[in-house]
Amino acid sequence: MKATATANANIALVKYWGKRSTDPILPQNGSISMTCNGMTTTTTVEFSDKYKEHTVIINDEEFKKDEKDIHGHIDRICKIAGINLKAKVISESNFPVAAGLASSASGFSALTMAAAKAAGLNVSSKELSIITRQGSGSACRSIFGGFVEWHKGEKQDGSDSYAEEIVDKNYWPDFRMITTIVEVKKKPVSSRGGMAQTVANCPYYEGWLKTVESDLDAVRTGIKQKDFLKVAETAEYSALKMHATMIATKPPIMYWIPASMEIIHSVRQMREDGIHAYFTMDAGPNVKVMCLTKDEKEVSKRLNELDGVVRTILCTPGDGAKLVDKHLF
Amino acid sequence: MKATATANANIALVKYWGKRSTDPILPQNGSISMTCNGMTTTTTVEFSDKYKEHTVIINDEEFKKDEKDIHGHIDRICKIAGINLKAKVISESNFPVAAGLASSASGFSALTMAAAKAAGLNVSSKELSIITRQGSGSACRSIFGGFVEWHKGEKQDGSDSYAEEIVDKNYWPDFRMITTIVEVKKKPVSSRGGMAQTVANCPYYEGWLKTVESDLDAVRTGIKQKDFLKVAETAEYSALKMHATMIATKPPIMYWIPASMEIIHSVRQMREDGIHAYFTMDAGPNVKVMCLTKDEKEVSKRLNELDGVVRTILCTPGDGAKLVDKHLF
Repeated sequence: MKATATANANIALVKYWGKRSTDPILPQNGSISMTCNGMTTTTTVEFSDKYKEHTVIINDEEFKKDEKDIHGHIDRICKIAGINLKAKVISESNFPVAAGLASSASGFSALTMAAAKAAGLNVSSKELSIITRQGSGSACRSIFGGFVEWHKGEKQDGSDSYAEEIVDKNYWPDFRMITTIVEVKKKPVSSRGGMAQTVANCPYYEGWLKTVESDLDAVRTGIKQKDFLKVAETAEYSALKMHATMIATKPPIMYWIPASMEIIHSVRQMREDGIHAYFTMDAGPNVKVMCLTKDEKEVSKRLNELDGVVRTILCTPGDGAKLVDKHLF
Repeated sequence: MKATATANANIALVKYWGKRSTDPILPQNGSISMTCNGMTTTTTVEFSDKYKEHTVIINDEEFKKDEKDIHGHIDRICKIAGINLKAKVISESNFPVAAGLASSASGFSALTMAAAKAAGLNVSSKELSIITRQGSGSACRSIFGGFVEWHKGEKQDGSDSYAEEIVDKNYWPDFRMITTIVEVKKKPVSSRGGMAQTVANCPYYEGWLKTVESDLDAVRTGIKQKDFLKVAETAEYSALKMHATMIATKPPIMYWIPASMEIIHSVRQMREDGIHAYFTMDAGPNVKVMCLTKDEKEVSKRLNELDGVVRTILCTPGDGAKLVDKHLF
């Protein structure tokens, strides 16, 4: 009753921002992401009657019950599998967590796949994405590789709110997502808290929701056509619209720091210089830059020259979550 | 046929963002501002038949016809006065122009008052604000001192879209507006261009308009009650909502630079430290910080310690536009 899975982070091209239900987690709007090779979490789960309670260790730090809902998510999987055991979970990521770098996405998808296997569950990827979604919304996209759409669904039980591959990782290997690391401090507001405040107290949230379907259509079509400008322009605009809802929330939610603006203006300057680079941002200060292989070196060079950039992580379209043989304990 | 006027800049507490008509200039929404002692323009206008065309010199730089609509505004005043002469105009400001520092507000109000006097026009302050508005919208507020409301009006001829004093400069002398200067470069998008793009291409603009009336009520009442927190909190949120509409415009309008974010986060930190400081921003990178006399020294000190701040300008509630005896030529 022991299994290990790896999962990659994903970066949304059309952003998920706002829940219509917290139990189960269901989104206000659909979203599309790229699964990012290069930002990976590996998680080993063992169920055993020798354990008296769940033990969860993430990057050498123990997480207690009620922190990040991890224990509850393990219980959820046990319930689905019809077992009543406690688990030991060890998880390691190769990138900074809790800095708006989608650590919960890779974390919850690796955890769900490993726990499901260890619990003896035999489910499809679609079902796995539905289970993952109940732990962390955007994590359901990391079950799949390449470019992925999370359908918002309509039903209150969540059975039609699942992720699905648009194209696999080999369809458009030239697409690059360069993540900048600007600080490793924990962010001031969790994305969960931020989106709840926005839905409740932003006068622009209705305007946000009205624009999402056309962004989804543009990005989905753009991916299938490998139309970089269509995808990247729409993705950049989706991120700005999302951040604008946060900035206009009462009280305002400000994830941008001086280094974020430095990178944004640098990317805009790149475009004036004829380089096809576009940015996106999540609920944190780091900026992610989209480009194609042909511009990858120049974009990386310019980003690393900026004062506020500690380092960059180069991501290509990556694999979905998968089981591996080598356990962490 | 020569007259000189001085006028102060004004900083909006409830922002003007968007025109419902460009000819004549009429706003989508009402606004409230403080007239700022310390950011002053002095303008001398002389009409004479010795001039063959208008000559306009602002801060030692000559402005030709079609630049900034200044020549057209002089013609407008001539037409109202029933004269047919050309003018020489010399104007000087004691603060950087065209950096989102309301230079057109002090400039157009001083110009209008001086030109009206030189042209022999005898009009009330309300009428003067209506004439000024036709040259530059927000400038109509600088005709008055203290705290001023610009009524948006309903009529297409603009006769009910004028500025009016809420309270004079002596009513609340403790209010402080500290302007930070972060750069003297010209801004990339004029406020005129920025607001036109926003009205046309921002999915949140309707949401913006829906919130303005309650902000006007809060700030107007807050000023009369000298309720600093009510005024400053509402003003900060009005500025953020305005910038959020720009950020969510297609293509996006980004006035914020790294130094802007540094100041914003510094002000938020001041509040965590118990200092009552709030910020506002206009169509440029500079941030203006509101506080009361009791916190003025500490706020100024902290702002001047920031890397991105070149200097600060301390403003108190100031006079409206007025005629002065000393001419610039």
